[in-house]
Amino acid sequence: MTQHLAIAQTYLAAWNEEDADRRRHLVSQAWAENTRYIDPLMQSEGQQGIAAMIEAARQKFPGYRFVLAGTPDGHGNFTRFSWRLISPEGDDVAGGTDVVSRDADGRIDNVVGFLDGAAA
Amino acid sequence: MTQHLAIAQTYLAAWNEEDADRRRHLVSQAWAENTRYIDPLMQSEGQQGIAAMIEAARQKFPGYRFVLAGTPDGHGNFTRFSWRLISPEGDDVAGGTDVVSRDADGRIDNVVGFLDGAAA
Repeated sequence: MTQHLAIAQTYLAAWNEEDADRRRHLVSQAWAENTRYIDPLMQSEGQQGIAAMIEAARQKFPGYRFVLAGTPDGHGNFTRFSWRLISPEGDDVAGGTDVVSRDADGRIDNVVGFLDGAAA
Repeated sequence: MTQHLAIAQTYLAAWNEEDADRRRHLVSQAWAENTRYIDPLMQSEGQQGIAAMIEAARQKFPGYRFVLAGTPDGHGNFTRFSWRLISPEGDDVAGGTDVVSRDADGRIDNVVGFLDGAAA
C-alpha cells in the first residue's frame, strides 16, 4: 500500500467511524494537535475541533459513508485523494477532493477540501 | 469573472510569459514575498525563487504554453484549478491541478501542485 493510500484510508476511517469515542481516538492518533481543516462548508482546528466537526457531519448524515474515488497521489508531505459520499440506500450523493499534509511525525496537520461534481 | 478564475489566469500568465523581465514583474506583483511552491517535480520559495523556477521550466519547454482546463473553484483564500501543457505543435503533453492560496493582500503565498493523467 502506498503512503498516500494509507493516509487517505486513515482519514476516511475517522469520518466513517460511527462511535464517537473511537472516532476521537482515531483523530488523536492520526491528526496533529495543531491540525487545521477547511473546505467550502466547514472549518475547524485542533484534534477536538476536527472530532466535533466530523461528529456534526455524521449527525447530519447518519448512516452515510465516505468511499475513496480513484487512486490517491501526492509528493513529499502532501497527499491528494477524491471521495464520494454514499447514502444508506447506496446513492452517490456528493464528492470532493482533499489535499492533506502531514507534519514531521506523519500526523495530519492540514486539510484543504474541495467539492467535486457528479460522479464520473 | 470570478476571483478564482482571475487568480488562475494571473498565475498561468506568469508561466506563459516569454520575456524574463516581464515575468519577474508579474511575479513581483502577484506573488507574496515569502511565497512557496511545491509539486512532484519542482519546489521553490520567494519571488526570485518562483521566477527562476518558471524560467528554468520555460527553457526546458520553449514555446510550450499552459492553458486552463475546466473551471477554477475554491473557497476563502484557496483556489483550485487544472491546466494542460500544450506543445508548440498543439499537442496536449501534460496536465495538473494546483491549489493556490492567497495572503491578506491577495498575493499568492502558497501553491501545491499535482500532476493529472491524460486529457479527458
